[in-house]
Amino acid sequence: MGRDQAIGVVGATGAVGRVTLGLLRERGYRNVRAFASARSAGAEVDGLTVEEATPDALAAGDLDLCLFSVGTAASRELVPHAVRGGAVAIDKSSAYRLQDGIPLVVPEVNGERALEHEGIIANPNCSSIPLTCVLKPLHETAGVARVRLSTYQAASGAGADRMERLRAQLPADGDLEMDWEFDGEEFDEETKLRAETRKILELPELPLSATCVRVPVMVGHAESVWIETVEPLSPDQVRELLAAAPSVRVEDFPTPRGAAGENEVLVGRIRADRAAEGGGIALFLACDNLRKGAALNAIQIAELLAARRPVPA
Amino acid sequence: MGRDQAIGVVGATGAVGRVTLGLLRERGYRNVRAFASARSAGAEVDGLTVEEATPDALAAGDLDLCLFSVGTAASRELVPHAVRGGAVAIDKSSAYRLQDGIPLVVPEVNGERALEHEGIIANPNCSSIPLTCVLKPLHETAGVARVRLSTYQAASGAGADRMERLRAQLPADGDLEMDWEFDGEEFDEETKLRAETRKILELPELPLSATCVRVPVMVGHAESVWIETVEPLSPDQVRELLAAAPSVRVEDFPTPRGAAGENEVLVGRIRADRAAEGGGIALFLACDNLRKGAALNAIQIAELLAARRPVPA
Repeated sequence: MGRDQAIGVVGATGAVGRVTLGLLRERGYRNVRAFASARSAGAEVDGLTVEEATPDALAAGDLDLCLFSVGTAASRELVPHAVRGGAVAIDKSSAYRLQDGIPLVVPEVNGERALEHEGIIANPNCSSIPLTCVLKPLHETAGVARVRLSTYQAASGAGADRMERLRAQLPADGDLEMDWEFDGEEFDEETKLRAETRKILELPELPLSATCVRVPVMVGHAESVWIETVEPLSPDQVRELLAAAPSVRVEDFPTPRGAAGENEVLVGRIRADRAAEGGGIALFLACDNLRKGAALNAIQIAELLAARRPVPA
Repeated sequence: MGRDQAIGVVGATGAVGRVTLGLLRERGYRNVRAFASARSAGAEVDGLTVEEATPDALAAGDLDLCLFSVGTAASRELVPHAVRGGAVAIDKSSAYRLQDGIPLVVPEVNGERALEHEGIIANPNCSSIPLTCVLKPLHETAGVARVRLSTYQAASGAGADRMERLRAQLPADGDLEMDWEFDGEEFDEETKLRAETRKILELPELPLSATCVRVPVMVGHAESVWIETVEPLSPDQVRELLAAAPSVRVEDFPTPRGAAGENEVLVGRIRADRAAEGGGIALFLACDNLRKGAALNAIQIAELLAARRPVPA
């Protein structure tokens, strides 16, 4: 197993799919197949010929692992077939994230939950992953009491069409977009971010308020975050805790440009929240939404499973 | 006086200066002169020939009002000469904003302070103006207790050079910039925003935490704001208060593009702060940083003075 396992990348021609193929190649995986819709079948991507992602192809029983980066409807349709064929499915859509019994995993935060899977493991939203990487070490030490954040989300988080739209746009027309689906008083994106953060940190009541905004940036999500903790933490303590945290790098001024192409969550601007009564911290993070925010996190889940799986006799 | 008063626009060739000239023309002012540095003297701007802004020219005694939109150092040098010549100076730099005895004025918020001037009135920062327009009606009704905000600031707020840099940038390279001057653990921009908001609202201890970010947008600042009030306010109450507030327009989804070219502060996404214990509100605002955020606010200060000035015998 390990680098020899048979891996299917479903949605291989999308923004996240392409990054997934590149990361698998870089990491020495030798038995990778690319799947996409009928429209892309036969095309070449990252040196592979794209196969059509039909239920039968995914259920054929020759895949150990399937990494899905397709839309929610396509995931709902196809993931069960891959599982039926005996593959473990790691799904990057929101189809299964909040379903009871399905682990929602950031390896550095709640990796042990991945081992409880029954075929499907959900990969969190590209904003939830970096946020929980930063919240977890603070929570372990001081208890996270409440969180507020504004996001600066890149076009690539909304897929290839949005990237095209930004490429076609004159910079002079740059605008912030706030056109996500609406869910009561919140955007779906904001509701997801709260629900997923609660599930990953196992804090089902965590008070969290998010305002999600898409900015004219191609790659790299950023978040401006206020965190109140039960036990007060000084900015120096937070800096120390985050410097020691896995997949987190402390920098003075994290930006999307600095995070793009990197595997770590960059965090900086760590300072006292001048509006908090007790222990409050303000900070800013940036993360490559296609890598740690999506493709890399899914591969890390797969590697965690491979490392914990008993060696075959 | 009124539309006949002799007005000097100093810094007439800059981004804010040009908008100032356009607004004065639209509003029927007939006696306007354009001043700029020696480099621009003789050039044409908005149908006017630019005069050099020398101390002598400004102190000559033939100006009733001087609107300054030049850098802080140039304001410190030139403003006193205009005042010496008998003009009222409305200064858009940060030179005088926090100086005791100098009014810092948003007409809809603390217009009466303008009448206490001794020659100089300061125009607030382009982020402080829309924020205080929104905070004031909430404060009057329920008492503002604490404020947190993340900004999405347009390139034009940093002047013509920054606009050029954004124009030259491929959209694919779009990045968030965080390169303001640093002041302890905060950016100057963040420190200013707190100090100015406190002065304008006359709440010298107001707890306020800001994270200021420049985004690849040409015109239009936006702010994602959390406001806690002493008396709880429902989102509906906030919507009603803001709908009735001067220079504020309630919209579902304010964006910089929607605010550009408009005279009002757009505010929306008004909802309960899901992270607040008591009365907390989350909202999003957008404002044309060159108009209400700068040029228009200064002209409104001038018009407030003109309206209150005794008619000459």
